Amino acid sequence: MKKLLTLGLLVAGHWAFSQTPDPKRITLVIHGGAGTITRKNLSPEKEKAYNEALEKALKTGYKILQAGGTSLDAVEATIHVMEDSPLFNAGKGAVFTHEGKNELDAAIMDGKTMKAGAVAGVTTVRNPISAARAVMEKSEHVMMVGKGADDFAKASGLDIVDPKYFWTESRWQGLQEALKEEKVQLDHTPPKDSSGRADDLIFTEGKKFGTVGCVALDQFGNLAAGTSTGGMTNKRWGRVGDAPIIGSGTYADNATCAVSATGHGEYFIRAVVAHDIAKLMEYKGWSVKKAADEVVMRKLVASGGEGGVIALDRQGNFAMPFNSEGMYRGYIKADGSLKVEIYK
Amino acid sequence: MKKLLTLGLLVAGHWAFSQTPDPKRITLVIHGGAGTITRKNLSPEKEKAYNEALEKALKTGYKILQAGGTSLDAVEATIHVMEDSPLFNAGKGAVFTHEGKNELDAAIMDGKTMKAGAVAGVTTVRNPISAARAVMEKSEHVMMVGKGADDFAKASGLDIVDPKYFWTESRWQGLQEALKEEKVQLDHTPPKDSSGRADDLIFTEGKKFGTVGCVALDQFGNLAAGTSTGGMTNKRWGRVGDAPIIGSGTYADNATCAVSATGHGEYFIRAVVAHDIAKLMEYKGWSVKKAADEVVMRKLVASGGEGGVIALDRQGNFAMPFNSEGMYRGYIKADGSLKVEIYK
Repeated sequence: MKKLLTLGLLVAGHWAFSQTPDPKRITLVIHGGAGTITRKNLSPEKEKAYNEALEKALKTGYKILQAGGTSLDAVEATIHVMEDSPLFNAGKGAVFTHEGKNELDAAIMDGKTMKAGAVAGVTTVRNPISAARAVMEKSEHVMMVGKGADDFAKASGLDIVDPKYFWTESRWQGLQEALKEEKVQLDHTPPKDSSGRADDLIFTEGKKFGTVGCVALDQFGNLAAGTSTGGMTNKRWGRVGDAPIIGSGTYADNATCAVSATGHGEYFIRAVVAHDIAKLMEYKGWSVKKAADEVVMRKLVASGGEGGVIALDRQGNFAMPFNSEGMYRGYIKADGSLKVEIYK
Repeated sequence: MKKLLTLGLLVAGHWAFSQTPDPKRITLVIHGGAGTITRKNLSPEKEKAYNEALEKALKTGYKILQAGGTSLDAVEATIHVMEDSPLFNAGKGAVFTHEGKNELDAAIMDGKTMKAGAVAGVTTVRNPISAARAVMEKSEHVMMVGKGADDFAKASGLDIVDPKYFWTESRWQGLQEALKEEKVQLDHTPPKDSSGRADDLIFTEGKKFGTVGCVALDQFGNLAAGTSTGGMTNKRWGRVGDAPIIGSGTYADNATCAVSATGHGEYFIRAVVAHDIAKLMEYKGWSVKKAADEVVMRKLVASGGEGGVIALDRQGNFAMPFNSEGMYRGYIKADGSLKVEIYK
């Protein structure tokens, strides 16, 4: 009897600990890509546009978290805002492949269940992050690629669009420039004359690793991470970067942290960046800040991997390190205080 | 002058340490898939065929290592033997998708440089492991999927085949059975009457996670890992498993170990299996055996992830843990002594 009672109390205690909502711990952090983003090559108008878009994304996720929503819901809705904005290389505004198409990648992971979903090379899903979530929740699989992933998204009832939906003049011009240079490049090269053509090509803020991402902590103490991208301008051969690779560009585990990365994907895959941050915390007892700094500011710098991450732990501590010149980023805390930043 | 001399000695010393061939350390380990493989559902004839194929694969890689070849060359050639054999679910002998196609995935990683290459969903490359290697060595990328990956393999001069090359009667029957059962299943279900139809369906050795893999250590002390698979019978929606995911199914780092996994891919992706083994060694100082056992026999068992791994460190220590009923596996040591095993 005593044993049963003890067990009952233990179960109740665990239930109370894991289920009691605590609005004071909600936190949401985002990024909108990293790269050569400096005051010099970003006009005041563009800077304002980015700041407003980042703020809108943060407030969208915060509203969900504050109303008692889950971190998964907040991550998905926040990324929708950035996918729907032509300012970011994800969803509408995605860069073009060598063949003049938009091929999109995304991943999402639930830190509570360790379930994950990812899609790569989709061309008809308006919000790839939702396709990733559908893979996680409505299939037995983790990753789907190409036409199969598009078909699955459609069968799941997601918003399907004509591939033309993703077309934007600025990204198209970016491809034409890249084709001229006859080499695969990341997102965009800076215009030769930054005072001149920069106004026409509103995204020519220099080499930028366009990817959007979000990590969130909800009232229930659950973490989630999501990442969405159009990849590299002029990419060929069905190239896939780190964004949809669980462990590299996206990872979440309540035991450690939630991570979303942005940068030169090949380096991030080889270094299994997101998982490495989590394991430094788990196996060496490091803080989320120390672990994220070690991977981004030391390991990636040593290997030549340009970019950054956002990482958040279960106590609401977070880090946003980047080794590039800038990273679109921001956070919002439980009290609603928010901050968006672009430069170093 | 003294400074220059010291520098010269240091350089020479480093060169000597890293370049002096030591034939005594060469080691090669392989797997040919894990699952419900028991004496009961594997006839003596089939057992013999598997043992012979595994032995041939081991000897092929060993010959290269002994002649002073690199671990990368040994891994690629060893996997060719298994890809070319209809006994294994990789290359010729790959299982069929829901649509009756063969879509192949593979990855390779070089522990010396940490470079990696992967392909997913290729349909015309005779040896997908060589496509993965071409991605690693002949492109700036790590991962390519679908038709783009096929095109790249062709442009790289690899052996391109008609998709019909991959057709085998037994795998086709496996798909028909799976379609009847109207559910995605892994590789194959055991025949209802194992004494009867088992002779016709020579691969019906039960639920088996067909994947092949190889890890090797060469005379120069360099590790490499490779994995190749046809995925799941009746897979749909462009599903991709853990084999081509760097960090999950395939990983190599001279600082820790080389790993190739086989099993229920979705669980292996979520757990970032191969990288976790490496990080337990690096951050906790564990042996390759302790680390591999922790991940396969405890963590994966707890999450329900059936399968196994082969893992090899730079001193030639290796582990081959699996939590399924059997795993086709084997190793060959520097002195040429080899062993192949199937059951627990």
